[in-house]
Amino acid sequence: MQGTRETTAPPAAYTPTERTVPTRSPERASYDKELVHAILDEGYVCHLGFVRDGAPVVLPTLYARVGERLYVHGSTGSRPLRMTGKAEPGLPVCLTVTHVDALILARSAFHHSINYRSVVVHGLAHDVTDPDEKQLALDALVDHVVPGRSRDARPANKKESAATAVIRLDLDEVSAKFRTGGVIDEPEDLALPHWAGVVPLRKGYETPVPDSGLAPGTELPGYLTQR
Amino acid sequence: MQGTRETTAPPAAYTPTERTVPTRSPERASYDKELVHAILDEGYVCHLGFVRDGAPVVLPTLYARVGERLYVHGSTGSRPLRMTGKAEPGLPVCLTVTHVDALILARSAFHHSINYRSVVVHGLAHDVTDPDEKQLALDALVDHVVPGRSRDARPANKKESAATAVIRLDLDEVSAKFRTGGVIDEPEDLALPHWAGVVPLRKGYETPVPDSGLAPGTELPGYLTQR
Repeated sequence: MQGTRETTAPPAAYTPTERTVPTRSPERASYDKELVHAILDEGYVCHLGFVRDGAPVVLPTLYARVGERLYVHGSTGSRPLRMTGKAEPGLPVCLTVTHVDALILARSAFHHSINYRSVVVHGLAHDVTDPDEKQLALDALVDHVVPGRSRDARPANKKESAATAVIRLDLDEVSAKFRTGGVIDEPEDLALPHWAGVVPLRKGYETPVPDSGLAPGTELPGYLTQR
Repeated sequence: MQGTRETTAPPAAYTPTERTVPTRSPERASYDKELVHAILDEGYVCHLGFVRDGAPVVLPTLYARVGERLYVHGSTGSRPLRMTGKAEPGLPVCLTVTHVDALILARSAFHHSINYRSVVVHGLAHDVTDPDEKQLALDALVDHVVPGRSRDARPANKKESAATAVIRLDLDEVSAKFRTGGVIDEPEDLALPHWAGVVPLRKGYETPVPDSGLAPGTELPGYLTQR
């Protein structure tokens, strides 16, 4: 569609790089922004990797996405956040989010697998020092856990905000990887007497348990009954 | 109990090191072997961190525990497994397993949290080359996903085993970290009109979906009906 506006639309995919192209099963990799965003938005915890004294460190932590930026927060005393504040031009990190969707039981041990969706982000983490961006990130971190929740809680006061460090990681060098579908067995194994199939894992919430001493008349909010 | 056999029993805890003692919330850290084993045994996927060209890489992968050893497997072509084969005296890794148990919604944004249990293992990964240890690890990897399953599947043949690399990481420099319990709010916030409480996340299996073409008379095995 030469000359139409579509040709100047922002790219719908991240550009693959040497380290985001897998050495194995390239058909399970994707650079599609919509897919990457959906996987990121569904997770609660990411695994943040960084290098300390030459050795890798991988820590679980909450995160949130705002457009093409990820935010991670923590105490100003936590190691990766302290290290980010000192690193120029930023702290090299790898941030990974993984969902395990189902167990795949094949007739052969070798073809056992899981259905999963993961996103791996490489880049430099930067300290967020702008007060407006920091507030945006703190709201996003609460809304990431329960969409809409930040409007139904007391916002952080100055002391709480000062005790919290926020770092930013741009979505630039990014890939998704996934497995979907059913069992793949060798043709000669199909007649074996072993059960084979897909075992989906449970998702979502159990019934919320209210804190004791809620203010009189406080009902379970709609954002907790919708999934 | 001086002089009794108990005093020479193996230690029930890992020895803390500089990098397994958190800078924050030390009361949420534990070195108890039983707790560490339970967290590891409940997970499906770990996040394996290593350093490549000076930058961190964090990849999700299946794993299994046998006593005080963890095993990770993959294609012989996968990057961390290839790197382990070449690394002397082993590849520095950090292997982390995390369970998210519940969302904690406090009346204040600042006190929002999650209940979680995680284990972080630091150490050197080694290639498993002994055929018996490799077979033990491959069985454990299948049994880790579904206990008892390795006896109900065709074992790997020579070609499949040759295509699979296994690495070992000893449980030595290990810590667990966790949050349990309910909402912690500031006393002055308790009268605020916001709903607060614990939202447990669903765990376990949905109904297993059998593969098409199971051998006649193949029933759902007991190890899939028990949880």
